Amino acid sequence: MTSVPGTPDLAPLAGVRDEVRDTPAYPFTPIDAPFKLDQNESPLDFPPHLRKLAVERLLERDWNRYPDLHAETLKAKIGAYEGWDLAGVVVTPGSNVIIKLLMEMGGIGRRMLSVSPNFSVYELEAQMLGANLTRVPLRPDFGLDVPALQAELRRGGPGVLFLPQPHAPTGHLDTPADLRAVVDAAGDGWIVVIDEAYHQYSGSDYKSWVLERGNRLSLRTFSKAWGLAGLRLGYALAQPPLAENLQKLVSAFNVNTLTQAVAEVALEHPEYVTARAEETVWERERVLRELGAMQHLQALPSRANFFLLRTPDADRAYRFLLDRGLLVRRQDKQPMLEGCLRVSVGTRAQNDLLVTAVLDLDAELTNG
Amino acid sequence: MTSVPGTPDLAPLAGVRDEVRDTPAYPFTPIDAPFKLDQNESPLDFPPHLRKLAVERLLERDWNRYPDLHAETLKAKIGAYEGWDLAGVVVTPGSNVIIKLLMEMGGIGRRMLSVSPNFSVYELEAQMLGANLTRVPLRPDFGLDVPALQAELRRGGPGVLFLPQPHAPTGHLDTPADLRAVVDAAGDGWIVVIDEAYHQYSGSDYKSWVLERGNRLSLRTFSKAWGLAGLRLGYALAQPPLAENLQKLVSAFNVNTLTQAVAEVALEHPEYVTARAEETVWERERVLRELGAMQHLQALPSRANFFLLRTPDADRAYRFLLDRGLLVRRQDKQPMLEGCLRVSVGTRAQNDLLVTAVLDLDAELTNG
Repeated sequence: MTSVPGTPDLAPLAGVRDEVRDTPAYPFTPIDAPFKLDQNESPLDFPPHLRKLAVERLLERDWNRYPDLHAETLKAKIGAYEGWDLAGVVVTPGSNVIIKLLMEMGGIGRRMLSVSPNFSVYELEAQMLGANLTRVPLRPDFGLDVPALQAELRRGGPGVLFLPQPHAPTGHLDTPADLRAVVDAAGDGWIVVIDEAYHQYSGSDYKSWVLERGNRLSLRTFSKAWGLAGLRLGYALAQPPLAENLQKLVSAFNVNTLTQAVAEVALEHPEYVTARAEETVWERERVLRELGAMQHLQALPSRANFFLLRTPDADRAYRFLLDRGLLVRRQDKQPMLEGCLRVSVGTRAQNDLLVTAVLDLDAELTNG
Repeated sequence: MTSVPGTPDLAPLAGVRDEVRDTPAYPFTPIDAPFKLDQNESPLDFPPHLRKLAVERLLERDWNRYPDLHAETLKAKIGAYEGWDLAGVVVTPGSNVIIKLLMEMGGIGRRMLSVSPNFSVYELEAQMLGANLTRVPLRPDFGLDVPALQAELRRGGPGVLFLPQPHAPTGHLDTPADLRAVVDAAGDGWIVVIDEAYHQYSGSDYKSWVLERGNRLSLRTFSKAWGLAGLRLGYALAQPPLAENLQKLVSAFNVNTLTQAVAEVALEHPEYVTARAEETVWERERVLRELGAMQHLQALPSRANFFLLRTPDADRAYRFLLDRGLLVRRQDKQPMLEGCLRVSVGTRAQNDLLVTAVLDLDAELTNG
């Protein structure tokens, strides 16, 4: 029964569903570099005085006891912060977990509708869980192709529709009119997900739309503006009946005691979030301005804490920046994003280094 | 489009799959009591000197950065502790997450085979994810019904087989011969899961069986013998090809920075685990001995850190113990477990209180 070394025996994988076997692993290779501008994290850590409070809080708790089943205290604090009924809040270890659970809730054996290009997790989960995936290309200006999306929605559900606002990896924010035209075309058989991971940088907030209809959700995260990507905490805002069904799919005790303690402290002191988001937006606009007149590269406008840099040769540009210690993320294999790198907005000093490097690269390309 | 208050509008739930809508929520209602013997936790917290080291470790890390994608350092430490290739280790926030992912990997639209009674998570996930669930009743002595399980396995997969060793909620440990007869009857289309959450209390360890065939896994947890239920960390040991497929289903960055730091410290100082498990086993045997000659109640033998207490009236017994400050878990609605409560083994002092209370209840039942 045992296999001979060197001859991989695939028979024992017969129990693995084809959809999983045929899906590649999440495309991410960690690379060490002095300046990490590749994961759209906050460049600043959770404020030191809050780290201190958070450690005190987590030391008050019993680590040998299971955490609060569905993190009710944390949910209540999120509810108070968002002005949302806590029965409509669902928390998980990262909002990518909610994306999986939404596919479990409404995608298995049904449809998943999204745009292209897009955040890769939507499509990986759809493939592995057996949702019939339709991706509608964005317009050349990265806006939603409203008529095409409406046609797909009217072709019928049931299914799950994912709409990021602002969009990743383009940083584009749609007009409310465009978004409205798509969202309103989704009948009851569709679960409509507005992924607002980056909304603090765009100034947009669509949670009021969730109140209009019980098949809508807004996704949010502590990984970006809150500066707590290491904590892994995301949440959905929905009306309570939909949240109750989503909650069934959340593994019991899913958000741990340490995370609950730290996030509670953050929610008791949220002032820093707005201040930092404003600083990042200011820096983003400064960088885009300073990169505004290049010959060979183009920095694309963005409403998020990152932007796309279109280059004539993504591989060369990526390595050029890495040689300067600047790690960014390649997006050039995505449709419509030929030559594109995605660059996170960092600290002022990091952004200065980036601007200098990019301008140097542009000059180098000009000079041969 | 909005619903009138008081008249729930179910139409917006049309996008929720029937399997999710029809499944009840995880049956757990938190109740405060001085002595928590209801969740099979370690009665002792993570040792204070390790808590101190763990806090130092987690303060060394950047909280604003995503954690290590698949917790490679933590996996390496688990691999070293278990003597296992780290490419065969998969970690998640709690082993209940792995149960969900296994159902995603091999259960959707296929079979899920287990025993009855059983840990409720297996069957809740099977129902919600659309696996065809077969439960083979245990023998009256709580052992595996080997011929019946063999017949189901031979009736054919593909599917996922869940076998807890020792079994929850009975605490029964099967003979290796019985377990062998079932495991070996599973063809390649079956994924065979040996859930060893409680194995430190039974002295059993089936990971060597996982080496025999690439469709087998052993599940383990930090929630019991490690005294870290609040941390939410579980892992699977498998051969690398199966682990690679399971890993695809783990949401990226799923185990957070704080958990990785604390678990790394635990794995660098594992001595306390064995010592505490031995103490718990000693206490379990003492309690079972002291409850060995009752008239109306019966404490059933166990190889885990809990045992079943069979009573003539579970509701009355539950309330009697709760009046003494002792919170236990009702199991009397499960098949074969009429009148049964599940009691965690606590500290010596807690166990003394429990023994006194149970003997008092038995006497009260005798005296009318």
